[in-house]
Amino acid sequence: MAKELKYFTKRSEDYSKWYNELVVKADLAEVSAVRGCMVIKPYGYAIWEKMQRQLDDMFKATGHQNAYFPLLIPKSFLSREADHVEGFAKECAVVTHYRLKNDPEGNGVVVDPEAKLEEELIIRPTSETIIWNTYKNWIHSYRDLPILVNQWANVFRWEMRTRMFLRTAEFLWQEGHTAHATREEAEAEVKKMINVYATFAQDFMAVPVITGVKSANERFAGAIDTYTIEAMMQDGKALQSGTSHFLGQNFAKAFDVTFMNKENKPEYVWATSWGVSTRLMGALIMTHSDDNGLVLPPKLAPIQVVIVPIYKDEAQLKSISERVEPLVEELRKRGISVKYDDADNRRPGFKFADYEVKGVPVRLAIGARDLENGTVEIMRRDTLEKETVGFDGIVDEVVRLLDDIQSNLFKKALAHRESMTRTVETYDEFKKEIEKGGFILAHWDGTTETEEKIKEETKATIRCIPLEGDTTPGVCMVTGKPSARRVLFARSY
Amino acid sequence: MAKELKYFTKRSEDYSKWYNELVVKADLAEVSAVRGCMVIKPYGYAIWEKMQRQLDDMFKATGHQNAYFPLLIPKSFLSREADHVEGFAKECAVVTHYRLKNDPEGNGVVVDPEAKLEEELIIRPTSETIIWNTYKNWIHSYRDLPILVNQWANVFRWEMRTRMFLRTAEFLWQEGHTAHATREEAEAEVKKMINVYATFAQDFMAVPVITGVKSANERFAGAIDTYTIEAMMQDGKALQSGTSHFLGQNFAKAFDVTFMNKENKPEYVWATSWGVSTRLMGALIMTHSDDNGLVLPPKLAPIQVVIVPIYKDEAQLKSISERVEPLVEELRKRGISVKYDDADNRRPGFKFADYEVKGVPVRLAIGARDLENGTVEIMRRDTLEKETVGFDGIVDEVVRLLDDIQSNLFKKALAHRESMTRTVETYDEFKKEIEKGGFILAHWDGTTETEEKIKEETKATIRCIPLEGDTTPGVCMVTGKPSARRVLFARSY
Repeated sequence: MAKELKYFTKRSEDYSKWYNELVVKADLAEVSAVRGCMVIKPYGYAIWEKMQRQLDDMFKATGHQNAYFPLLIPKSFLSREADHVEGFAKECAVVTHYRLKNDPEGNGVVVDPEAKLEEELIIRPTSETIIWNTYKNWIHSYRDLPILVNQWANVFRWEMRTRMFLRTAEFLWQEGHTAHATREEAEAEVKKMINVYATFAQDFMAVPVITGVKSANERFAGAIDTYTIEAMMQDGKALQSGTSHFLGQNFAKAFDVTFMNKENKPEYVWATSWGVSTRLMGALIMTHSDDNGLVLPPKLAPIQVVIVPIYKDEAQLKSISERVEPLVEELRKRGISVKYDDADNRRPGFKFADYEVKGVPVRLAIGARDLENGTVEIMRRDTLEKETVGFDGIVDEVVRLLDDIQSNLFKKALAHRESMTRTVETYDEFKKEIEKGGFILAHWDGTTETEEKIKEETKATIRCIPLEGDTTPGVCMVTGKPSARRVLFARSY
Repeated sequence: MAKELKYFTKRSEDYSKWYNELVVKADLAEVSAVRGCMVIKPYGYAIWEKMQRQLDDMFKATGHQNAYFPLLIPKSFLSREADHVEGFAKECAVVTHYRLKNDPEGNGVVVDPEAKLEEELIIRPTSETIIWNTYKNWIHSYRDLPILVNQWANVFRWEMRTRMFLRTAEFLWQEGHTAHATREEAEAEVKKMINVYATFAQDFMAVPVITGVKSANERFAGAIDTYTIEAMMQDGKALQSGTSHFLGQNFAKAFDVTFMNKENKPEYVWATSWGVSTRLMGALIMTHSDDNGLVLPPKLAPIQVVIVPIYKDEAQLKSISERVEPLVEELRKRGISVKYDDADNRRPGFKFADYEVKGVPVRLAIGARDLENGTVEIMRRDTLEKETVGFDGIVDEVVRLLDDIQSNLFKKALAHRESMTRTVETYDEFKKEIEKGGFILAHWDGTTETEEKIKEETKATIRCIPLEGDTTPGVCMVTGKPSARRVLFARSY
């Protein structure tokens, strides 16, 4: 069983297969009986809960409040904003009836044709329309602004090709929807929230990200501007990890939401929306994990430290437990989540393999000889390094190690990204380099036409126009036309 | 505006109208554009979040973990358990298509008839079926049991008559779904969880409840036994506030979920499920609130203390703020959520009315004369009593007052329930008493027939067979047949 746990596809053999197996073996999620939908298992959900809690604290610290809006959206609402419906119509789950009945012909339960809705309802793919229809009643004067609201919810987009966490028909997310009196204030909000996401990704997930603006082609349906954070996975592909949209007055116009300004004149309200989803789980898994299983940054690990006793008989276990109990207490006092696994139906070797696959950052093992010698074996999951250290002072050592693992994971991911980021000058060079994976910084003439040609010929897209980095102008690698600055290309999830 | 806030229907005039107005005026929720669905506004959602956090802690303390299962359920799953589908078929929202398209005749966006699902999907009205279909893969041996899982989710039941929080088509809830090797263990779980709900209702919501078992007629569709907590609203009607179901092996049989027991023989798994929902918001509102607005128990109030400065000019405000700031800090250190409302666009009278309507438990007001005298005015929301007390020692006084309000609300609600609970001997007496509202304890012969006759003739139902109280046998008030013990009748929400 221990072997079975550890035995799975290596990243170098088939990265995609490795990912799918890891998600299942680490007990994070599994495919469900409903096409495109997954079951998030307790261990996977515990990681998501830690993410949620941290993000929620950050949203509240920046002045936002949570609320809840309906799951179902009248079809006509979706149609009000032209780009928006164009973007989502093809992947809408549609509710058409509100009742089942017994089939008069005895074929079990069937949809009752008499219970047909006058207007179909769509399961929200995102909530701009229902929310702006609601804001219409909340906003009358400049005194009602800003509205800074977030919603934690499930959404549904009928995707044809799905992968657990990365792209599922139903997913869990948060969507912030804010309303402002001025363009400047809305734009500042959009930037503030993409920075909150970048901070969360880097400081908690230990995932380095590049913050930038999407090209017109990759914008959210209905947005004027979309800001994004882009992470690089170990296979060199990009993963869009969070977006923040400046919606201008598009939704205010679609839903006729105006306010009286200080001069008592009506104006349309300015809008933003921003979201991250369970897709972040995919980013977390693919950034750090290795051929032995999951690797978790300590700040998001449901179990940060596991302690495994190694014993021959009850008496030994008792002695070990007596030594370990005050340690567990002391670690908990320091805010560390610790599990003492003294279950007697699994052998130490199995436990080691299991916690390795589950990515527990620090493992302590303590046996009879350790008791005699006043030692303990400590293993760090990121490097798999083992060391035998003195039992006294182990608390400080664990604290130090957790910090070190957190920063080491970030550094490692950053070094990997840097090693796979190149600057190219010509389109030939680009085509050669893109085959090797990674990020490519290159000049582009700013047109959708060129972007689409590149995508068609190389499967690479513009991930973003970075907010930072080299801003020297140049000429487009494809057309030779002027380019304002280099932009970031990659193949992506 | 202050007047407008305070001006609403009195409970004695029209309790139902009072409730609807209060929900809106206290900024808790509003009806949405989607039939039967509500928007939970930030202030209402903040109360729900406090409930969630507390309940979640209690679930985890009793060994449960959270997970997440799909929103949509294949129609055929629902049909597997006969009673279950019978109970829910009439209120199912049905997804039949997965795509919209532009109408070729130019009528905007329409459902694409080519994107019809082979099998319809139901928005979960509850998740037993999809979860037991999943558990089938999780459970092989007795070593895989118990499974103690909870899910926080939205569910959908197409109700014809809806009221905010009390009965809405979509609502938020948690649903625990556990799997056990033995009947005894499952039954113990069912009781444990109804007791968790009772503790939460009484100790946090300050809502006294009667715990008992439902009659066959009122059981959850698919359960062997349903335990319930029943609360009494101020109008004397009962509100079912939480239920815990012993499902026996019904769902294990429907989904063929067996395990190998210690003797290596296959057995069907035993199941429980239990849930509370945003309906608890309705119980909270209707138990404590008064003609001036919401009254909240301190343990669930998003703002426990509000401090309002009363000043004539900037200089006065500055002096007051200097006095108040260390107080705010001290209160926060004691774990109290406090708001210092120094906004200058609303007058003190308006603020007073607003926080009264919103049910903030303790209000402090401080003006220039208080500064001179070293005093502060303190108001408690439950009794509306005002007192001027010394500024020194105010922190202890606030802590004491919050405790006192919490226990006073419970005592008041309990006294109200006791004053409206009677024991009757004859059916004539019953019919007279039920018109006055409240709970009635009476003998019943245990048959569905008698129960339905009583319901038809009096609109009263058996709320539960209480677990505690008088267990003396007697004769049924309607049929004169033997009765094992008195049961609890009431009209209900």
